Amino acid sequence: MRIISITNRKIEHVEICLYEDVEFGSTLLEDVSLVHQSLPGFSLSDVDTTTNFLGKKMSAPIIITGMTGGLPELGKINETIAEVVEELGLGMGVGSQRIAIERKETRETFAITRKKAPNSPLIANLGAPQFVKGYDIKQVEEAIQMIEADAIAIHFNSAQEVFQPEGEPNYSIEILYKLIDISKSLKVPIIIKESGSGLSMEIAKLFYENGIRYFDTSGKGGTSWVSVEMYRGIRKNNWKADSAKLFLDWGIPTAASIIEVRTSAPDSIIIGSGGIRNGLEVAKAIALGADIGGFALPALKAAIQGKEALMNFLKRVIFELKVAMFLSGNKDLQGLKKTPIVITKELREWLDSRGINLSYYDSVRKRRT
Amino acid sequence: MRIISITNRKIEHVEICLYEDVEFGSTLLEDVSLVHQSLPGFSLSDVDTTTNFLGKKMSAPIIITGMTGGLPELGKINETIAEVVEELGLGMGVGSQRIAIERKETRETFAITRKKAPNSPLIANLGAPQFVKGYDIKQVEEAIQMIEADAIAIHFNSAQEVFQPEGEPNYSIEILYKLIDISKSLKVPIIIKESGSGLSMEIAKLFYENGIRYFDTSGKGGTSWVSVEMYRGIRKNNWKADSAKLFLDWGIPTAASIIEVRTSAPDSIIIGSGGIRNGLEVAKAIALGADIGGFALPALKAAIQGKEALMNFLKRVIFELKVAMFLSGNKDLQGLKKTPIVITKELREWLDSRGINLSYYDSVRKRRT
Amino acid sequence: MRIISITNRKIEHVEICLYEDVEFGSTLLEDVSLVHQSLPGFSLSDVDTTTNFLGKKMSAPIIITGMTGGLPELGKINETIAEVVEELGLGMGVGSQRIAIERKETRETFAITRKKAPNSPLIANLGAPQFVKGYDIKQVEEAIQMIEADAIAIHFNSAQEVFQPEGEPNYSIEILYKLIDISKSLKVPIIIKESGSGLSMEIAKLFYENGIRYFDTSGKGGTSWVSVEMYRGIRKNNWKADSAKLFLDWGIPTAASIIEVRTSAPDSIIIGSGGIRNGLEVAKAIALGADIGGFALPALKAAIQGKEALMNFLKRVIFELKVAMFLSGNKDLQGLKKTPIVITKELREWLDSRGINLSYYDSVRKRRT
Amino acid sequence: MRIISITNRKIEHVEICLYEDVEFGSTLLEDVSLVHQSLPGFSLSDVDTTTNFLGKKMSAPIIITGMTGGLPELGKINETIAEVVEELGLGMGVGSQRIAIERKETRETFAITRKKAPNSPLIANLGAPQFVKGYDIKQVEEAIQMIEADAIAIHFNSAQEVFQPEGEPNYSIEILYKLIDISKSLKVPIIIKESGSGLSMEIAKLFYENGIRYFDTSGKGGTSWVSVEMYRGIRKNNWKADSAKLFLDWGIPTAASIIEVRTSAPDSIIIGSGGIRNGLEVAKAIALGADIGGFALPALKAAIQGKEALMNFLKRVIFELKVAMFLSGNKDLQGLKKTPIVITKELREWLDSRGINLSYYDSVRKRRT
Ligand SMILES: Cc1cc2nc3c(=O)[nH]c(=O)nc-3n(C[C@H](O)[C@H](O)[C@H](O)COP(=O)(O)O)c2cc1C
Ligand SMILES: Cc1cc2nc3c(=O)[nH]c(=O)nc-3n(C[C@H](O)[C@H](O)[C@H](O)COP(=O)(O)O)c2cc1C
Ligand SMILES: Cc1cc2nc3c(=O)[nH]c(=O)nc-3n(C[C@H](O)[C@H](O)[C@H](O)COP(=O)(O)O)c2cc1C
Ligand SMILES: Cc1cc2nc3c(=O)[nH]c(=O)nc-3n(C[C@H](O)[C@H](O)[C@H](O)COP(=O)(O)O)c2cc1C
Repeated sequence: MRIISITNRKIEHVEICLYEDVEFGSTLLEDVSLVHQSLPGFSLSDVDTTTNFLGKKMSAPIIITGMTGGLPELGKINETIAEVVEELGLGMGVGSQRIAIERKETRETFAITRKKAPNSPLIANLGAPQFVKGYDIKQVEEAIQMIEADAIAIHFNSAQEVFQPEGEPNYSIEILYKLIDISKSLKVPIIIKESGSGLSMEIAKLFYENGIRYFDTSGKGGTSWVSVEMYRGIRKNNWKADSAKLFLDWGIPTAASIIEVRTSAPDSIIIGSGGIRNGLEVAKAIALGADIGGFALPALKAAIQGKEALMNFLKRVIFELKVAMFLSGNKDLQGLKKTPIVITKELREWLDSRGINLSYYDSVRKRRT
Repeated sequence: MRIISITNRKIEHVEICLYEDVEFGSTLLEDVSLVHQSLPGFSLSDVDTTTNFLGKKMSAPIIITGMTGGLPELGKINETIAEVVEELGLGMGVGSQRIAIERKETRETFAITRKKAPNSPLIANLGAPQFVKGYDIKQVEEAIQMIEADAIAIHFNSAQEVFQPEGEPNYSIEILYKLIDISKSLKVPIIIKESGSGLSMEIAKLFYENGIRYFDTSGKGGTSWVSVEMYRGIRKNNWKADSAKLFLDWGIPTAASIIEVRTSAPDSIIIGSGGIRNGLEVAKAIALGADIGGFALPALKAAIQGKEALMNFLKRVIFELKVAMFLSGNKDLQGLKKTPIVITKELREWLDSRGINLSYYDSVRKRRT
Repeated sequence: MRIISITNRKIEHVEICLYEDVEFGSTLLEDVSLVHQSLPGFSLSDVDTTTNFLGKKMSAPIIITGMTGGLPELGKINETIAEVVEELGLGMGVGSQRIAIERKETRETFAITRKKAPNSPLIANLGAPQFVKGYDIKQVEEAIQMIEADAIAIHFNSAQEVFQPEGEPNYSIEILYKLIDISKSLKVPIIIKESGSGLSMEIAKLFYENGIRYFDTSGKGGTSWVSVEMYRGIRKNNWKADSAKLFLDWGIPTAASIIEVRTSAPDSIIIGSGGIRNGLEVAKAIALGADIGGFALPALKAAIQGKEALMNFLKRVIFELKVAMFLSGNKDLQGLKKTPIVITKELREWLDSRGINLSYYDSVRKRRT
Repeated sequence: MRIISITNRKIEHVEICLYEDVEFGSTLLEDVSLVHQSLPGFSLSDVDTTTNFLGKKMSAPIIITGMTGGLPELGKINETIAEVVEELGLGMGVGSQRIAIERKETRETFAITRKKAPNSPLIANLGAPQFVKGYDIKQVEEAIQMIEADAIAIHFNSAQEVFQPEGEPNYSIEILYKLIDISKSLKVPIIIKESGSGLSMEIAKLFYENGIRYFDTSGKGGTSWVSVEMYRGIRKNNWKADSAKLFLDWGIPTAASIIEVRTSAPDSIIIGSGGIRNGLEVAKAIALGADIGGFALPALKAAIQGKEALMNFLKRVIFELKVAMFLSGNKDLQGLKKTPIVITKELREWLDSRGINLSYYDSVRKRRT
């Protein structure tokens, strides 16, 4: 019974994301400019976007972050994404595997990704709250093994949970202890991943000081899970829906989150995600401090139309990233990570309010390789 | 005759507040962000909003500030509010008791609050200008005793008085001397309360240095009493109505007022009020420097619909406060008072113009318990 | 012949000011807030707006700046203004007296002001460009004597002159030398007056260092003489009209001009004018650094309707000034000149760009008596 | 065959520029104010805009930057422009001469400029990418000789090239080496010229340190070549058109570019261009750091209507420049280069982000002669 409700909910989530307007707030990436350099010193075709991620080579620093799995039609989406990322040399994550831990017959909807993407970095996925409900290294290893994952993302989604009509959010500190513990005996890294509200410098520091080196910002400005639950609440006439409206704008904007995490976890690997919508924004995210750009919603919208649509979308993104690198005079990602940036308006004030010294941040940013 | 005109005016005020648009300007709370913390370290149900206020325990740091009384239908509103705050463990103030001082038969419309709310913090209310018209400790004690109050708010409403068609505002310095004097022999504290134009650091300091420790900011951005009198003026064809328009935006925004008072009266108890409309704003007010959040107009609008409407409104507010605390990783109010805040745009410039050093302010803010 | 064209032009100017939209740009007074002080310490009726100006006592620091004269219907406007300022205890200037210097029969249209306002400060008026065309102390004394003036304003209107279809603007440095020279033998002070583009700190300094102590800012944000000439140009199909559009926004905003002049001519008497439209703005102008607030266009619009309309307009202005003083806790103008002010947005940036140190400015501002 | 496609493309470019909306983004010149000075100290007719440029005397610091040539109808435009600049004492550049290098019969469409403008500064033009495709000093000298040019502009247009449906942008560092080399044996200077995306301080420095002393900023805010190629792409159904939309706003705003170049190439000659639309903007550009103001699109639009239209346009520009100089109290360009400026909003933040110290910049700016 409970399982059914999880899968139903998953379908409902996907459906709302596809047919309602679920994007709110701003990433503040519009307050960031890369600087045009009239003489790049190379040709557009020389631009090298290759990178290593999780021990694998990628043609571009782009992944599709975890979204789905658990039902046949959702497995189909995973399959499409896997085929495309394999073909293009990118990476991907799967949606929460809790369902597959709890109902073995659904595993194939996740496992299909490794079959279709034998050489790509794949990221397993479980929700942080499960670790107060009994999950431990066993489930983590199961999830990883299920897709022969190169890493596992543990997603934090407190903002969503509070507005779930059926939610009873529990984010005990036990989660930290367990994850740290698990990380020590795991063969692949744990990625601390938000799901639309952004990682803060405090949270990044907490995990960084305990040995974690992978973060996925998933900041504000893209898919708002508060909005998704608000739509569900409205349908169910749930009283929380009204309050949800207030929190549509809650969270750390993606641009700010990338800077916060980079500053407090200087030598970590950062996936900049949350509202990233094109290759120019991937370039900005990397210049600001990310190593990889992550897409969810726009990839889902393309995948639902089929392999070709997703392929075209991602090719366009890669082209735009290359153009941004070319025009800002950066032949490779090492250059892009040190490129001059202009930060204006609200993002400047955010950083100042958070006590982030701009020149210290700039030195940390440029120390990256 | 004069008494009749007070009660008539009171009814007219309530009516205008209910049926006209009386909210003007901005609290600048939109220039404040709390910071999302992905791992709160506890569950939503662990969030503890209890606090002590005026020697009584409250379930949440929320009061309904003084509005009404003096006529049967207004007493009914007081009764509704009292029942609800008692049930929810909150507090309330009554409207100006001048009428009951002057016409004993109206006392019941105030006294009803203590009957219905035997365990809640109740706040008596008199207007500052009365203290130049002969009021003294006698009337203050009468007002307190009338509702067995835990404190008495003395409201300052100069902006309203100047635009009252019948107003002759007198705000002699005698008011200060008398109030200080009275405060020394009174058993309950005096709360210096604005009514929509905001307390400044200068005023807070003046009273603070004379021993006062309770302030209700009632800043700009909510109910504008200038607007209420403007509507009355328009109806009466009074020439002041035109000038009132100019002053609709007059006053210290609530967010600024909270910071001003906290900075100049560091260890005082501050009610952050004026345009507070939901639990997220209560959370911001407390993070900025308030101890308690105060509501007037929205509580009136709910109370007029009945007990259940007010109950629902306040439950939603408490839920939103808890959500804001949960998502910003603060288990209790002690935490919320020290939580990181982001201050942008006009509020930053206000503070800078007022000579408030941001890091000094931050240290004062965090010194709170 | 030439005389006819001056009077015709004067009529056309007045007509355009009355029937076209001639106000452009911003005074930046909207970037200035006075601070509400809940306990003024006195009553509204105690507010004392009296001041001395040009050796005469005024009931409020308000003058109507020079606009008109030279034709019977324009003399009528002067008469109306004179009657009203005398009755209210204010002051006024007349429009340029060049016509009366050149055609004696028009003198009465100016002289009427002294007849109707025997006790008010009256300001004679001549244009700066006349001093390169032969005017000297003789004409200045004639103008002063014509209305028994307490001062003479020499207006600078280069922005207007360049867009006059018939203009040949000459603003030779001779003007400076002559005015300084004249000022030494004159019994009444010379007021250096702009006419809508604002006095800069450089110009104020130039005259201040040569002994001038009276300035009328007439800054940007009110009547735009560029626009008046643009309308004339459009009617005449003059090619300059297109270029005039570009310069509609030219000039130093009144708020900035007041600060610039106060900073570079610290102990001078400053008329803050240009776009002042109500008593709250008079209060802001004085708090910023002016001694007197000046009105042109709105006074013209009221005067044209008759004495009562102008009287009502000015009474409202005085009431609003008193309200602003009362609410900001300033019993007299001495207080208002030292009152706290909040400066935000563009005005802050203007001052910073102009190298005006805010705390130095604040000390100069508060040194006023 | 290939040649035909270049000329076709040229015609298509001109046609799109004339009939589509091709201007995007902002120059940020709206964040710059010149300061009104009420007493200029001279007459409007005294304003002296003469300057020396490329060894020739100009009546005003204005050129039409390179746009066209190669086909009879485009040669006609060059002819018109040449006649007008000769008559007014201004200067001009021709469009890229690649076509004439490759097809001798088209030379007349360029050479006509020198015939019609024997005394004006004329600027030859070649594209930077040609220097990786075999161009060398020979072609440069050919281009110069073709119009007896006083300088040759090498234009950089990477942003356009990436969105050309047929583009294969190659901006190898060889370009730098070759240009430096060529510059050493050339009799006339090389001008490093952008074409709408703005020169950065890094690029200016690179060339400056290698001896180049002439720059044409051609910053963002005017004609967007990304947009021109986007329109072409839409017509051709090219997939890049969608991505082009993202980059419509790419580039360094003209105001920022002028400051960047002036700061890093202090004693160079700078043409401030890109979105300059009138004489007030020429004045701002020069005050900011440019020596000459450059126009492309508006000159094309006027020239297409004929000689008189262009003449009128440029006369208006010169008048507006003179007015701006007069009103800001600057009799000649030496004065304008040192005149006070007010910099606000985004431009301030841009400079700060780019590490440009405002007072250092101001000293460099004022050191100009
Ligand atoms: C339909 C959908 C399902 C998602 N499911 C998960 C999930 O199971 N696990 C997870 O970590 N994040 C999940 N996310 C969050 C995304 O990975 C991502 O962090 C977030 O949507 C922000 O990125 P975006 O703005 O590009 O969509 C989901 C997102 C979408 C749109
Ligand atoms: C109908 C009404 C009556 C009020 N009467 C009083 C009063 O008698 N005494 C007082 O101190 N404040 C009075 N107030 C002011 C409120 O306590 C509060 O300070 C102000 O309305 C700002 O809060 P709000 O924006 O939440 O309404 C009244 C407010 C309302 C709406
Ligand atoms: C109709 C009209 C005529 C004016 N004539 C003169 C004049 O003769 N001399 C002068 O110094 N200023 C003259 N002025 C300028 C005003 O004194 C004042 O400086 C300017 O209009 C800005 O103030 P305002 O925005 O309140 O109109 C005139 C203004 C108006 C509206
Ligand atoms: C139709 C047209 C053709 C152009 N062709 C050239 C060219 O061949 N070489 C060049 O250096 N710039 C060329 N440009 C760019 C201009 O010189 C100038 O740098 C740019 O348009 C920005 O200025 P604007 O905003 O005033 O148009 C051309 C511009 C236009 C509008």
